[in-house]
Amino acid sequence: MKYKSFDHMNCSLAQTLNVIGERWTLLILRDAFFGAKRFGQFERSLGVAKNILTSRINLLVEEGILEKRESTEGAHSEYVLTEKGWDLQPVLLSMTHWGDKYKPDKRGKRLTFVERATGKPIRPMSAVSSDGQPLRPRDIQAKAGPALDNKLLLRARE
Amino acid sequence: MKYKSFDHMNCSLAQTLNVIGERWTLLILRDAFFGAKRFGQFERSLGVAKNILTSRINLLVEEGILEKRESTEGAHSEYVLTEKGWDLQPVLLSMTHWGDKYKPDKRGKRLTFVERATGKPIRPMSAVSSDGQPLRPRDIQAKAGPALDNKLLLRARE
Repeated sequence: MKYKSFDHMNCSLAQTLNVIGERWTLLILRDAFFGAKRFGQFERSLGVAKNILTSRINLLVEEGILEKRESTEGAHSEYVLTEKGWDLQPVLLSMTHWGDKYKPDKRGKRLTFVERATGKPIRPMSAVSSDGQPLRPRDIQAKAGPALDNKLLLRARE
Repeated sequence: MKYKSFDHMNCSLAQTLNVIGERWTLLILRDAFFGAKRFGQFERSLGVAKNILTSRINLLVEEGILEKRESTEGAHSEYVLTEKGWDLQPVLLSMTHWGDKYKPDKRGKRLTFVERATGKPIRPMSAVSSDGQPLRPRDIQAKAGPALDNKLLLRARE
């Protein structure tokens, strides 16, 4: 499956989607966050075709989101998150919290995310003000920076 | 383009991706956050084929993320974000902040997001502890809830 590239779009969101915007990619990253390392582990967990999984993992390695290593335990490769990969956690948590709210399971939560040190659940993902207060979506405004080309984006809001 | 559904996956992330996991969809939502309302506005901003745009917008309406209204100004439809749509803001901001960090433009920021009331930039998106402290990715742990079926997910971390 070939995708139209978003390379030409000078937008941080589009650039991110260019890398992780294919749906399987975020599920691969989910499994990497949960400790999956080997190709076969991703394959079993996701039930995805080998060729798709290969191309998605290769892109993540190329982009420096996963690092390919030789396993210490045997003759196979392992894929582990880099810091750049760990930095995608807010994306995954934001989507997960939205799914918890709008696509719930009647038996309750599927997963709870807690602070390791205290065991207490983290707050729902939201924007946070410079002094640490959670902000509602309408409390936030976008301002053009020096690199904004697509002025259309701010047309209706400013 | 037909996608394999993630309907059968009892995972909040997969369920969310089932709705917004196609790349154009998040750019459509970006434009809606910036005030685009009419089909032609999305089309011009994105340069996307009409049939793709139609199918993505229809799904967003069907899912209650965009509401279709008759315009007050003339004989055309408008698409506006519902509360369920506004609640996707953390997803878009998280991706945008990651793109700011890892796909920067050498001229500086493309957009800055500020608190409307104070004009001060919001914090980079991150998980936040129950008492409001920003947490690093490795400070967070996932715990199984009553609705977790895919025990594989917690295999390697618990």
